[in-house]
Amino acid sequence: MANPTAAMLVIGDEILSGRTRDANMHFLAQELTKVGIDLREVRVVSDDRDAIVAALNALRATYDTVITSGGIGPTHDDITADCVAAAFGVKIDIRDDARDLLQAYYESTGKEFNDARKRMARIPDGATLIENPVSIAPGFTIGNVHVMAGVPSVFQAMVASVIPTLTGGAPMLSQTLRIDRGEGDIAGVLGEIANAFPDLSIGSYPFQQNGAYGSNVVVRGTDGAQIDEVMKRLSDTMLTLPDPE
Amino acid sequence: MANPTAAMLVIGDEILSGRTRDANMHFLAQELTKVGIDLREVRVVSDDRDAIVAALNALRATYDTVITSGGIGPTHDDITADCVAAAFGVKIDIRDDARDLLQAYYESTGKEFNDARKRMARIPDGATLIENPVSIAPGFTIGNVHVMAGVPSVFQAMVASVIPTLTGGAPMLSQTLRIDRGEGDIAGVLGEIANAFPDLSIGSYPFQQNGAYGSNVVVRGTDGAQIDEVMKRLSDTMLTLPDPE
Repeated sequence: MANPTAAMLVIGDEILSGRTRDANMHFLAQELTKVGIDLREVRVVSDDRDAIVAALNALRATYDTVITSGGIGPTHDDITADCVAAAFGVKIDIRDDARDLLQAYYESTGKEFNDARKRMARIPDGATLIENPVSIAPGFTIGNVHVMAGVPSVFQAMVASVIPTLTGGAPMLSQTLRIDRGEGDIAGVLGEIANAFPDLSIGSYPFQQNGAYGSNVVVRGTDGAQIDEVMKRLSDTMLTLPDPE
Repeated sequence: MANPTAAMLVIGDEILSGRTRDANMHFLAQELTKVGIDLREVRVVSDDRDAIVAALNALRATYDTVITSGGIGPTHDDITADCVAAAFGVKIDIRDDARDLLQAYYESTGKEFNDARKRMARIPDGATLIENPVSIAPGFTIGNVHVMAGVPSVFQAMVASVIPTLTGGAPMLSQTLRIDRGEGDIAGVLGEIANAFPDLSIGSYPFQQNGAYGSNVVVRGTDGAQIDEVMKRLSDTMLTLPDPE
């Protein structure tokens, strides 16, 4: 049976302008892989209402789960929650439970719970809150969409609390063989092996080190015995190649 | 006049599985920003023919320029060139000029110019080659799509040769003000300023450092005098805020 699928929607001008290097995609990819959920697509869009709504609707219709990052803070450019409500066609307003969480937090820190901070209690109708142990302002889940903050420490905490609620698949196993030959030397045999083992994903990731070419061959799948067999076949084949000149 | 727009399509299972952290998106975002081209969207898809063709057709219809990375090597999982040909509805085959480049290179290195390596000379009909000074195997341009390698050193060299051929816009200027206050303290004034200066993009990027909250406020636009004015207004406003408790 195929594993459940997921997509990620990264919202933020700062990634697209090159000001910030996204850190959340890589983290999420690793966490989903651990529990057997296939991250199939990532989209990065700017802080633009039409772009966010269109991307969200496309992704939630295509994949089992969608996780968004970014745009749920108190400032004018934080429009994600409103866009999610628009995408689902539901109302959005300040919700009591979210407001109470925030109010208690700001009272405890002596900061003013002003209108801007109250915006972070705006939750689309029908959503459930995602806990934020770092800075309290919650994320939320609506349908198959999980809306999270973009600040990496908060994003990671929210992912940690949502992942156990998702239906995982067979954990993806992988083994890597480093081959100090150009990809062109091993492409033939890799293609043959890929054909012979259609249930495995066999990837070749080339690199250049000290002027010489090599490749990391990564064999992924859910059947450990098949992966072992491919790794042995690969190792045996490497012994038969002529030495690099 | 609005700046030209661009999108990026990253092709590769290794990014989505979390095995590799993408480095090309951040590089491209910075390079495009320098020449006044707005990177509006990035999509990351797996090594899947239908996914690549669909994403490519959506992006090339929407944005002025599309840049792809990944999937143009010699191995079985390198299917980008064939997918681009399919998206454009053109034929693809080994092309003499690309083959000659590769043949001369492999002869000079004493490596066999085998069938796998010849695959890297497969170029869709009507494309022009993008030079690859690092490892010779060329990228190509067809229509508004520029197809580049995923290995960062090669991707960067290809971007450097393609950028001068693109029509740039007004260079985007930016200034950043670090504010050692929670975003909620400054959100009100930021929203007012954003309303007053619709031609500027005013972003707030929160951080947490040594347990205290702060934000980098980034003001971007093409009009340096307007940016100066906003920065002054921001600085003046910060002086009027009560001290953090």
